[in-house]
Amino acid sequence: MKRPPLPSPFSRPASGFPDGNDAVIAFTTRIRLARNLADLPFPSRLTATQRREVARRAGAACAECRPALLRQTSSMDRLSPLDRRLLLEWHLISREMATAATGALLEEEDGRVSLMLNEEDHLRLQVLTPGLDLPGAFREADDFDTALAQHLPFAFDAELGFLTACPSNAGTGLRASVMLHLPALMVTGAVEGVARAAGRLKLAVRGCLGEGSEPWGNLFQVSNQSTLGEAETAILERLQGIVERLIRAEEAARQQLLTRNTPEEQDRLGRAFGILAHARRLGTQEAMNLLSLLLLGAELGWFPRLRPERLRRLLLEVQSGQIQLAAGRELSPPERDEQRARLTRAALADAART
Amino acid sequence: MKRPPLPSPFSRPASGFPDGNDAVIAFTTRIRLARNLADLPFPSRLTATQRREVARRAGAACAECRPALLRQTSSMDRLSPLDRRLLLEWHLISREMATAATGALLEEEDGRVSLMLNEEDHLRLQVLTPGLDLPGAFREADDFDTALAQHLPFAFDAELGFLTACPSNAGTGLRASVMLHLPALMVTGAVEGVARAAGRLKLAVRGCLGEGSEPWGNLFQVSNQSTLGEAETAILERLQGIVERLIRAEEAARQQLLTRNTPEEQDRLGRAFGILAHARRLGTQEAMNLLSLLLLGAELGWFPRLRPERLRRLLLEVQSGQIQLAAGRELSPPERDEQRARLTRAALADAART
Repeated sequence: MKRPPLPSPFSRPASGFPDGNDAVIAFTTRIRLARNLADLPFPSRLTATQRREVARRAGAACAECRPALLRQTSSMDRLSPLDRRLLLEWHLISREMATAATGALLEEEDGRVSLMLNEEDHLRLQVLTPGLDLPGAFREADDFDTALAQHLPFAFDAELGFLTACPSNAGTGLRASVMLHLPALMVTGAVEGVARAAGRLKLAVRGCLGEGSEPWGNLFQVSNQSTLGEAETAILERLQGIVERLIRAEEAARQQLLTRNTPEEQDRLGRAFGILAHARRLGTQEAMNLLSLLLLGAELGWFPRLRPERLRRLLLEVQSGQIQLAAGRELSPPERDEQRARLTRAALADAART
Repeated sequence: MKRPPLPSPFSRPASGFPDGNDAVIAFTTRIRLARNLADLPFPSRLTATQRREVARRAGAACAECRPALLRQTSSMDRLSPLDRRLLLEWHLISREMATAATGALLEEEDGRVSLMLNEEDHLRLQVLTPGLDLPGAFREADDFDTALAQHLPFAFDAELGFLTACPSNAGTGLRASVMLHLPALMVTGAVEGVARAAGRLKLAVRGCLGEGSEPWGNLFQVSNQSTLGEAETAILERLQGIVERLIRAEEAARQQLLTRNTPEEQDRLGRAFGILAHARRLGTQEAMNLLSLLLLGAELGWFPRLRPERLRRLLLEVQSGQIQLAAGRELSPPERDEQRARLTRAALADAART
């Protein structure tokens, strides 16, 4: 007997899968704005009572301007580690929040707009959209921010801008990031130069679960590192510039692979398929790395029977939390590896149906 | 346009594949008797004229007692390196003969009985039979030897026995060997202890192409190391004993695998199949090692759709010479790897047909 381990909104697949052609390389765009209440200390110095006050006041403000956010609220301390892991994999909470099990999350049903409470800052507004859409996602976050500001006294300094717990977020409080799938740049070995170029532009290139995570599945998060001293539009434009360069570089690398079409690369992709279709145990890293290659092959037309959309979803579904969600219960690490292999085999059979 | 690169008898598959149940682990039995003409120096000291004399006299003797051997005669210096490589893979000539390209081979059409001329000794009689049959193969070699001895003056010393170029072959001149497929002993890690035990019994355990070769495909040749000071029957009995112990140990290891049936081993076999069925380049060692695992799985009933007989043949057909034979021409090493992968994919599809 399987039981749904989580409230129903959690059973939905992670939002933010790309649809259009541009979205093949850019999986998701994420905007986060850090805000704090002027009349309370930052979360690290709050009493339990004050934390509840933050939550109450944020809830009241949302009730006025964005009531859909109140339909799904989660206190981290009441969620299981697995539930928090899932929210992390869906990019709705931070690693710190998942680990420390403090704070709360308000989210709309599709996960597109959400609000973290009492993380590092009192409020962190988030917008997560499919594909590459920095202006659209920012506009949505900005509208939400403007609406909230009519109900909440945000800490703001005329010279510094918005004040935040960590100075690195002060000013705009903006973190904009784009998740990119760059398998061809990895295969051709060109990705490191790109990361260096991004660093020179004060942009960070990280793994798919953010700071400190590895680029498993050739998934990279590119985001701004500085928030102070320039307008939001300048930050977004700089990020847009490097993201577009990365996408063009990835496209060129794919074209190169198509042109060369060497047995070495055919072999690499063939083996990726063979292992994914026949292994009985798969770790997260191996599964994501091989699925990334298979997705690349499918997108290049080398696996005409495999639908890229299904592979793209699978690339994220093999993460530990979602593996356990699919199994309907918590699993030991070896059980996860077996379940991951089962799921992958089934999904490849499914992806092959047209 | 494909041309047959070799005279037709070479196009046949290597002889000596097992049929019965006992033959699942013991692939082939080989008996070799070293003999020299008493009135000529050993081959390393022969003039070209004397070498021709050896060949002429051996041929004349065969014409009397074993005319079938004369139907297929090959001078090494007239064969291409690829042709010699094939004879080596079929266990009809030694590595030295393949490399040095000297001497000649007379063989019956099925490769079961053959005669090497002017290798290390003037004559080396060989019998190669499928499965484990030391008494049968020895009887056949002994009969042939007795018949030849009626026409040729073999160098024989009442005290030492038959005289040979290398003292290590003197006495009986007998080398008996059995090729064993021991994948379960390799998987369970027990094979090393067995090799040590064989060493104590003055038996050698080697790779499938004899001295100095690696046990690719988990194929081991077990043979006697000493030829002097005991009767042929004693040598054969000692070898029979260790071979039977190895077969029993392999069977026990297989039973252990069946009983445990762990995801780890299922995974190992699943991956072997996945890679063999989808790789686009395969080296000899990788192909033989993976095919050995797949054959083990098929024999254990874990791949009910794969016919073990086909896999058993394939395990030897992926060797470099036979890969080029199948391609109909000499291939560069990368071309061989691609051809090997093609052949393997096709053979697995073929093995799956019932």
